[in-house]
Amino acid sequence: MYVVAVTVFVKPEHVAAFVDAALDNARNTRREPDNVRFDVLRSEEDANRFLLYEVYRTKDAFAAHQQTPHYLRWKQTVADWMAQPRQGVKHTTVFFGDGDTPQG
Amino acid sequence: MYVVAVTVFVKPEHVAAFVDAALDNARNTRREPDNVRFDVLRSEEDANRFLLYEVYRTKDAFAAHQQTPHYLRWKQTVADWMAQPRQGVKHTTVFFGDGDTPQG
Repeated sequence: MYVVAVTVFVKPEHVAAFVDAALDNARNTRREPDNVRFDVLRSEEDANRFLLYEVYRTKDAFAAHQQTPHYLRWKQTVADWMAQPRQGVKHTTVFFGDGDTPQG
Repeated sequence: MYVVAVTVFVKPEHVAAFVDAALDNARNTRREPDNVRFDVLRSEEDANRFLLYEVYRTKDAFAAHQQTPHYLRWKQTVADWMAQPRQGVKHTTVFFGDGDTPQG
């Protein structure tokens, strides 16, 4: 699996709209054939901090996601609502779901 | 759901042992009745950087996890292997799995 974990700090006045945009992106991304998860999380300590946890079957599937209308819409919509540039960290899986992941 | 995302930077000479310890913790935590996920991820850009993505049904379930023998063993085992203190961020869910999460 290929996992992208994106931390976003949102300007307080745009949090409600950001959540709506994130939900739109999450719901549409979950319909992509090679998307496995798209969890939208909110920090317990900082209500303006969010984590998007996106899992794709392959790195290519993530690249395909970045070409979708819903991703491009999300990217453009939220660009000015962030208090700082979003931080995306890309990963491979060691253990995922209920089992170890063979390492390449 | 209650989600704990822990970023760990491991000293290079301890990475192999860290992975073993993380797998032990993940496998045992998945057997806890109120654990939903325990993904162990490795950064694509920095092979010494890991993300533990832990999902519990409730905050209390996470507190219970922290009392288990496998958690305490993990915590003690890896303490000296980290290049810097681990960074744990606790979250509630806005969208999880295949649907929106009712907000309390």
